[in-house]
Amino acid sequence: MKLWEKGFSTDAKIDQFTVGSDRELDLVIAPYDVKASIAHAQMLGKVGLITSEEAIALEEGLNDIGKQIEEGNFTIEDNFEDVHSKIEYLLTEKLGDTGKKIHAARSRNDQVLVAMHLYLKNELAEISEEIQVLFDLLLSLADRYKASLLPGYTHLQIAMPSSFGLWFSAYAESLIDDLYFVNAAHYITDQNPLGSAAGYGSSFPIDRAYTTEALGFSTLKYNVVAAQMSRGKAEKSTAIALSSVAATLGKLAMDICLYMSQNFDFITFPNELTTGSSIMPHKKNPDVFELIRGKCNKIQGVPNQLALLTTNLPSGYHRELQLTKEIIVPAIQELKACIEMTTFSLKNIIIKEHILEDTKYDYLFSVDTLNDLVLSGVPFRDAYKQMGEAIENGSFVPKRTIKHTHIGSIGNLCLNDIKSKMDLLRMMMRKK
Amino acid sequence: MKLWEKGFSTDAKIDQFTVGSDRELDLVIAPYDVKASIAHAQMLGKVGLITSEEAIALEEGLNDIGKQIEEGNFTIEDNFEDVHSKIEYLLTEKLGDTGKKIHAARSRNDQVLVAMHLYLKNELAEISEEIQVLFDLLLSLADRYKASLLPGYTHLQIAMPSSFGLWFSAYAESLIDDLYFVNAAHYITDQNPLGSAAGYGSSFPIDRAYTTEALGFSTLKYNVVAAQMSRGKAEKSTAIALSSVAATLGKLAMDICLYMSQNFDFITFPNELTTGSSIMPHKKNPDVFELIRGKCNKIQGVPNQLALLTTNLPSGYHRELQLTKEIIVPAIQELKACIEMTTFSLKNIIIKEHILEDTKYDYLFSVDTLNDLVLSGVPFRDAYKQMGEAIENGSFVPKRTIKHTHIGSIGNLCLNDIKSKMDLLRMMMRKK
Amino acid sequence: MKLWEKGFSTDAKIDQFTVGSDRELDLVIAPYDVKASIAHAQMLGKVGLITSEEAIALEEGLNDIGKQIEEGNFTIEDNFEDVHSKIEYLLTEKLGDTGKKIHAARSRNDQVLVAMHLYLKNELAEISEEIQVLFDLLLSLADRYKASLLPGYTHLQIAMPSSFGLWFSAYAESLIDDLYFVNAAHYITDQNPLGSAAGYGSSFPIDRAYTTEALGFSTLKYNVVAAQMSRGKAEKSTAIALSSVAATLGKLAMDICLYMSQNFDFITFPNELTTGSSIMPHKKNPDVFELIRGKCNKIQGVPNQLALLTTNLPSGYHRELQLTKEIIVPAIQELKACIEMTTFSLKNIIIKEHILEDTKYDYLFSVDTLNDLVLSGVPFRDAYKQMGEAIENGSFVPKRTIKHTHIGSIGNLCLNDIKSKMDLLRMMMRKK
Amino acid sequence: MKLWEKGFSTDAKIDQFTVGSDRELDLVIAPYDVKASIAHAQMLGKVGLITSEEAIALEEGLNDIGKQIEEGNFTIEDNFEDVHSKIEYLLTEKLGDTGKKIHAARSRNDQVLVAMHLYLKNELAEISEEIQVLFDLLLSLADRYKASLLPGYTHLQIAMPSSFGLWFSAYAESLIDDLYFVNAAHYITDQNPLGSAAGYGSSFPIDRAYTTEALGFSTLKYNVVAAQMSRGKAEKSTAIALSSVAATLGKLAMDICLYMSQNFDFITFPNELTTGSSIMPHKKNPDVFELIRGKCNKIQGVPNQLALLTTNLPSGYHRELQLTKEIIVPAIQELKACIEMTTFSLKNIIIKEHILEDTKYDYLFSVDTLNDLVLSGVPFRDAYKQMGEAIENGSFVPKRTIKHTHIGSIGNLCLNDIKSKMDLLRMMMRKK
Repeated sequence: MKLWEKGFSTDAKIDQFTVGSDRELDLVIAPYDVKASIAHAQMLGKVGLITSEEAIALEEGLNDIGKQIEEGNFTIEDNFEDVHSKIEYLLTEKLGDTGKKIHAARSRNDQVLVAMHLYLKNELAEISEEIQVLFDLLLSLADRYKASLLPGYTHLQIAMPSSFGLWFSAYAESLIDDLYFVNAAHYITDQNPLGSAAGYGSSFPIDRAYTTEALGFSTLKYNVVAAQMSRGKAEKSTAIALSSVAATLGKLAMDICLYMSQNFDFITFPNELTTGSSIMPHKKNPDVFELIRGKCNKIQGVPNQLALLTTNLPSGYHRELQLTKEIIVPAIQELKACIEMTTFSLKNIIIKEHILEDTKYDYLFSVDTLNDLVLSGVPFRDAYKQMGEAIENGSFVPKRTIKHTHIGSIGNLCLNDIKSKMDLLRMMMRKK
Repeated sequence: MKLWEKGFSTDAKIDQFTVGSDRELDLVIAPYDVKASIAHAQMLGKVGLITSEEAIALEEGLNDIGKQIEEGNFTIEDNFEDVHSKIEYLLTEKLGDTGKKIHAARSRNDQVLVAMHLYLKNELAEISEEIQVLFDLLLSLADRYKASLLPGYTHLQIAMPSSFGLWFSAYAESLIDDLYFVNAAHYITDQNPLGSAAGYGSSFPIDRAYTTEALGFSTLKYNVVAAQMSRGKAEKSTAIALSSVAATLGKLAMDICLYMSQNFDFITFPNELTTGSSIMPHKKNPDVFELIRGKCNKIQGVPNQLALLTTNLPSGYHRELQLTKEIIVPAIQELKACIEMTTFSLKNIIIKEHILEDTKYDYLFSVDTLNDLVLSGVPFRDAYKQMGEAIENGSFVPKRTIKHTHIGSIGNLCLNDIKSKMDLLRMMMRKK
Repeated sequence: MKLWEKGFSTDAKIDQFTVGSDRELDLVIAPYDVKASIAHAQMLGKVGLITSEEAIALEEGLNDIGKQIEEGNFTIEDNFEDVHSKIEYLLTEKLGDTGKKIHAARSRNDQVLVAMHLYLKNELAEISEEIQVLFDLLLSLADRYKASLLPGYTHLQIAMPSSFGLWFSAYAESLIDDLYFVNAAHYITDQNPLGSAAGYGSSFPIDRAYTTEALGFSTLKYNVVAAQMSRGKAEKSTAIALSSVAATLGKLAMDICLYMSQNFDFITFPNELTTGSSIMPHKKNPDVFELIRGKCNKIQGVPNQLALLTTNLPSGYHRELQLTKEIIVPAIQELKACIEMTTFSLKNIIIKEHILEDTKYDYLFSVDTLNDLVLSGVPFRDAYKQMGEAIENGSFVPKRTIKHTHIGSIGNLCLNDIKSKMDLLRMMMRKK
Repeated sequence: MKLWEKGFSTDAKIDQFTVGSDRELDLVIAPYDVKASIAHAQMLGKVGLITSEEAIALEEGLNDIGKQIEEGNFTIEDNFEDVHSKIEYLLTEKLGDTGKKIHAARSRNDQVLVAMHLYLKNELAEISEEIQVLFDLLLSLADRYKASLLPGYTHLQIAMPSSFGLWFSAYAESLIDDLYFVNAAHYITDQNPLGSAAGYGSSFPIDRAYTTEALGFSTLKYNVVAAQMSRGKAEKSTAIALSSVAATLGKLAMDICLYMSQNFDFITFPNELTTGSSIMPHKKNPDVFELIRGKCNKIQGVPNQLALLTTNLPSGYHRELQLTKEIIVPAIQELKACIEMTTFSLKNIIIKEHILEDTKYDYLFSVDTLNDLVLSGVPFRDAYKQMGEAIENGSFVPKRTIKHTHIGSIGNLCLNDIKSKMDLLRMMMRKK
């Protein structure tokens, strides 16, 4: 390493450049590498590439490391490039030559691939659970506030009556769409890539069916080149799922920030959930939702970041695929935080009643009033003329009773149907 | 319209600005609008908002228009803003006041929503079919050329032996991942949004279950606000599916362009599928694949275009949602063309045999040679030393027989397993 | 062309796939191709590659074609691939062999490069002019309405007093920043690329200094490989300039849509500039500004579209670079329309007076009231306590006189300084 | 803070959510906050809002903190939200009430705005310097290797002769284009925003001209709303400059990775700059350039990330603008590292001579051979026929002497002209 060795600053720069934030990110990956390594060691024993004693020793050694990780006693020092070299070092330190045998018939690329698949699959399952919690909360809020009316807007202009029931459950039902993408990403990551070696398979008689079963994958990426191609693609698929959820949460956050403005004044939150101003007592800054909105907008850009990184790369491994980790891991953590914060805050939402009593909302009822006349037998043209004149000369008195009864309308929210749709989707996922 | 009326040029500008390319795009949407309008008219008759005679007259009138569209005799002149106003005009021209009644209990937004859902759902099904055709071709090419070897690269450096069988079927298996997203988008668009009116439902007692069944939707978007929110979201979901497929096709196209370069010289195509140069007879420009690569890269950016368009819009309809059409419709057409062109061209691909006989590929076999020694009982360290010396002193003679037998490797492509995975996925979609 | 010849539909598909919308787009490029071809012909004559008679004949022929284009009599039929082949055909039809000589010492890539540079440079200059017009209007609106107050928001919460003067001129000054990018793109396109041939120069003794001067370029892209690399890069540089302007217009449009909502009700427009609703007389839908917002958001994504198209392409021409045209040309046209529509509509804006008289805006003045106390000598802590109590017990009476006098504040808009900054920037551009 | 107080884990989550990585990023901003605070304190003294003794005390206190920062002894503990609160704490600890007076007539938003402008402006100047160093190196490499030929490709097909001189200097000249955007971003950040307070100015008689001069800004953002709007916009403008440079470096890195492949074999690097493989001695993995390519592709997406974050936010401060820091600061650091690594590595590049002697490159010379015949008086059609026949029957012997003499071609690289163009641009920047 002569050329690079120009004293500390250059070395540090190069390490920073090539290793970057990998060690930190790798702590997240570590448990999955241990799990995959155990399965690999068992398989090596099973096909006779190592002895069964060696396989057992490796498994025990790895289990010890797994415990260290769980207990928070595992670190990756600067002299190790990544989690994989640290684990191999620990194994060799303990088991001597046997420790080195773990690397037979696999490559570093293999290890990263399988650990990332396990990690992503697990995170997608957790995100799915967190969405379910938020979904349930939204439905219960919809039920609790189904009688509380809101103005409905088109073009940001006052248009038709809406309700908190409609508003809350709309976001619940919208989350179901996002879950289709979460599921798709889950299926995509639920395929064992282990055994692709450097991306072209190997001449060792490895048993990929065994590791697939041992690691709990539903199937495997059969073709080893396809398995290698899933580096970057599994991450992008996950990012797509994240971005879909993020778009929904971001839109909800935008509504909330707007509805908290004094010019709307539809909702508020306890002081503890907003920031104020010492001399402007009216201010209730929705910082948490502004940050949710911002973070979700950032997350919406993540698939594009990964597309830029991988576009026009011919097949085969390229070193920059390592950079996918530093893009996807923080995005996953951020989306999970956004879902949790949304759920946590919405539990404390305070809605305003009697919003529509303000006269500026009178016209909201004009369409319904017209429909009423029509349903009562007045020909449309006469009804329309009558209404128009009343509005024109200021004698229009809106009928403020809402009789929206069809499926999915204010008076018939179909919360159980929406819940059933969600249940069906989640069941499909579990069955898979 | 006084202010705008400053002669032709201003009017044309404003028309161009607000209507844009909508009329052209609407020809694509027209059949779906007719279909949805028939279901709506039937429903109006069923619930008594119009008489059954009126319902039948509307249905007949709409069927006539549908025939015009099918026969290519339907146009949207400049004095109509969009397909919906043209169809309403034709109905009214024919049926008088009855024609106008079609618009009871629905809004323009409603019409666009349901027509777009039907259109997108249908296109996604067609894309799914086209992917199946390409998938089958790739598997059959993999089978035909399974014995033809290729160099495998990592870091664009010669690394390990690969094969045409591996290469073709890798892209086939990779397409399965994309189909998960196509399916997700299909599910998302397969929910009837009709009946949301301006986005908040209506006081008319419409029967949304009826239209859901009549239009062949698997379920409906119950919540009317959620239905309105699917404007933009259905398009983005479709775009995500397109971008996933596009990434795979684009990567394949990049491989092909590289492999056609004289510096690789792995494949070629008949002259009719390439462009040449009058005085450089060696040139075989892969224009079709360069364009596939470029178009697919553009398509990868479409979800981001839609995210930028819709991000931070509060709930409720906004006029720019109309612009989603001019983004998604061409992207769909372009991806379909890319799939077709890929299939059409690959049918004619000519692969080169004996590529690995060039001595520059000798080192490809070093890993396998080492593995062989190890499998034959030579301790790894001795084997490694022996190999290293042979390479160093130039006496290394690669064993050119490939004995890769594990699942998904050169000698065991598992084409039937890959095919079964695809079949299972397609069945899931159909059952849904 | 046997393989492709499977009847009309296949041919049409291939033509659509490889030529796409090029012919239409090329009508926009045509005048620049004529101009560049004249300069090239003159140069060929000057260096003796053709005779001076031939040069003159070519120049005359090209001038005739230029006139046809100007008069709208120029078309590119389906049997021509692009504008360049049509022009060459016309020249050859008229001048026989001499017509063909125009193509000596240049390539198609060359032609597109130089025509696009001329086109982009010209469009950037026009956009610069249109921005100046909008800038002037914003400053004059700021001056006219400098005394009309507005609430200022932070976190969408009522915060501090603002004014229409401040609001209008903020967007004017913000446009200056965008113009720095318009200028940068102008400089980048103002470099003659002609003479790069296929991207590596030629053995003909061409005179690139002559064409640089004849075409009015300030300098040339000396290196022929750099010239070739500017294909795609000139387009992306222009897209960056567009996206910068678009972000500013889009933000203004968002403000306008919000301020037109009945919940803000700060501004309105004559009926002719909004769309209404037959039975909701209060509705004034800001369609034009919603479309400006949407189109500008789309334009913000254009640099990313071009990045995806060109990323990871090694040096040298690739066919998909042709696709840059169909991305950049509509974006330019759309941005110009957005600037024009913004200017046209703002000329007719109607602002509401006395907005701050609504008591919900009282707290806007709390900070100023506190500052007043401090400036009058009350220690900050006492002033703060006094204020806090008054607000708490409801006795707070805001002092509604605004005494903001520092540079750039409500009472001191510095419109002339902002104008001077713009003048300086525009002068720099012209001097260049 | 009752609601949040549910034990450590919740608090930590909220802190993580709202503060995020701000403390770490703020260490980068700290020196600029000190500098701006000194100017602000002096101004407060000058206009009499504090006494001159207080002003001097604040300046001294801030200088001490500045020294701490410089010496690496400054930390932001977890009980401080950001750098600004830590500095205020230190001042108050030392100076008592005087310390608190620093915050008169400014807001936190103000502080961040001005510190970020100073930081970005400084970083852009440093990037400009680093580009100059790389530019100079590329020109010197071009000069050194001007006689070494390379194949030139179009469509990745062998096309025309090129040279290392042409290749190196093409990237040098291409960097000039990027510098136009670096300059534009520099101008945009070189405007003092201080004094906008919460975004609407204040009733204190502050002297913004004084701070503009004291901080070395060329001008100020006059309008306070425009100043506030530059939050996010200054960051995006900088990101645009970064992305432009990144595109050029990324393309160069792609060329290098390709040219190092054994299938091209045009260049190499000392072992110390590549990674190898223990049993594949031919492998020279270009990890550094793959990482440069990947990082540069990520950076190309940064403007889009910022667009997604800020799009459709109405005017006025929003909390998520804080997130711009965590996007732009790492992007700046990463681009600087990429420029440095490119420069460092290129200093050690080893080029292969005699590349074109391989017969597969014979056809490179066909165009020149044809041109020669034409220049020697053979009519084009005859020359063409003669050539075509020679190529067809295998008797074509390329003339391997390259006589490209026109401006910017192999034989006339115009390195001094390119250098002059750069000098002119850099002078413009300095004069500004």
